[in-house]
Amino acid sequence: MNNLRILVTNDDGIMAPGLRSLVTELSQIADVVVAAPDRERSATGHAITMFQPLRAKDMEVPGAQAAYAISGTPADCVKLAIDALFPGQIDLIVSGINRGANLGTDVLYSGTVSAALEGVMLGLPAIAFSLAEYMDPVFEPIASLAKDLVQALWQKPWPPDTLLNVNVPQLEVAALRGVKVTTLGHLRYNNPILTRQDPWGGTYYWLAGQAPEDNNVEPTDVWAVNNGYVSLTPIHFDLTDYRLLDTIAGWDLQLPNNRGR
Amino acid sequence: MNNLRILVTNDDGIMAPGLRSLVTELSQIADVVVAAPDRERSATGHAITMFQPLRAKDMEVPGAQAAYAISGTPADCVKLAIDALFPGQIDLIVSGINRGANLGTDVLYSGTVSAALEGVMLGLPAIAFSLAEYMDPVFEPIASLAKDLVQALWQKPWPPDTLLNVNVPQLEVAALRGVKVTTLGHLRYNNPILTRQDPWGGTYYWLAGQAPEDNNVEPTDVWAVNNGYVSLTPIHFDLTDYRLLDTIAGWDLQLPNNRGR
Repeated sequence: MNNLRILVTNDDGIMAPGLRSLVTELSQIADVVVAAPDRERSATGHAITMFQPLRAKDMEVPGAQAAYAISGTPADCVKLAIDALFPGQIDLIVSGINRGANLGTDVLYSGTVSAALEGVMLGLPAIAFSLAEYMDPVFEPIASLAKDLVQALWQKPWPPDTLLNVNVPQLEVAALRGVKVTTLGHLRYNNPILTRQDPWGGTYYWLAGQAPEDNNVEPTDVWAVNNGYVSLTPIHFDLTDYRLLDTIAGWDLQLPNNRGR
Repeated sequence: MNNLRILVTNDDGIMAPGLRSLVTELSQIADVVVAAPDRERSATGHAITMFQPLRAKDMEVPGAQAAYAISGTPADCVKLAIDALFPGQIDLIVSGINRGANLGTDVLYSGTVSAALEGVMLGLPAIAFSLAEYMDPVFEPIASLAKDLVQALWQKPWPPDTLLNVNVPQLEVAALRGVKVTTLGHLRYNNPILTRQDPWGGTYYWLAGQAPEDNNVEPTDVWAVNNGYVSLTPIHFDLTDYRLLDTIAGWDLQLPNNRGR
């Protein structure tokens, strides 16, 4: 019987401890290869590199059968891995473990989630793992839990085109209250921009802000993580707002100088 | 009566002719302000700038009452405009006119669409305009059409949280077959990676590929543009795959060392 073959990627870069812990654990249940950014690429969203070429540097990552550091974004890494570095050799993409949560509307900014989404767009199933702790993350127990979850999920009748976005609160594993299947919440930050003066009187700005927690209720991912659950959200890549198709089709929108419809 | 107040942005940069044409035309029907990247930022997806500060440089853009060149991504521009540069002063965001189409799954890579999506996430309606011609775009007639469409659309009962993604084929305006309300197609490229050798024997890669057209049928946006229609797709930002929530909730996913659910 062939082993499960997993591609691991992330957006914190190939040296990140969250990726290293994940590879070590997943190598116990699968053949693991790695293609990850050569540096930190957080908050890059679904950016891709169109106007310069990409390089892939051979690396040692303990537990991985092969590993490449890519001079691009997380989405670049997955494109390159699937279509050039490991063609036909990947069953599942696992992205992470991200340092910090990827919840709610913030998933649109997330390189970790975008890497997984790129995999799904190319026809492979994917899971993104994030640890909801930015300042002082402890990855090892979460990596072990990720291994168990991957093993359990891979037994299930996985629908095609599916991305599962998993966020884990930083608690003792025994203190986690279980797995909740959730929807994406809506994170709208308070005080989102800081305005400051440089020493020469010029103005500069920081994107900042705090997410108000109280307007994200069950069954959102934000609520689940805040309440000690492992949050698991199924995600797709079709942004069409189907609810509005009929409404808008009913609007009379004539083009100027145009009689045909 | 107050004028409609429009923020114009894009991902081709504040000097791009597509933006300039759009501002000139929209200034005939609205008070226009501009916040756009200080350089080309195509294919940046929904990236934001978290780890360095942003600068906003005062610029002259003919037709605009105020204009800033921002040292960040398209999504940065919209955040900064709404929350710091023009707070409470914007009714509608118009992004574009992009040089090249933004169709189907490619919208996830698009800075133009991501800028508009950021506006919607912050509570403002938005329209993204793209001209489906990369090599030799002629923007003026499409900008005039965009003005007419904005004027027509703004009279409609616009649902909240709505982004309209508009793609226009490069035809004589009189030859356009009308406006089609469409869904996002799925663009999966053939031959997606080019592998090359540098003069010193090293390997590098280009993201490339051609989109096969034939698997995108009516009512997709890809089909509409290929058949001479102006494509108008309603887009939302909730990536939750609601179809799978019940299925996955039915999977028995126990955490290790954990008895509580």
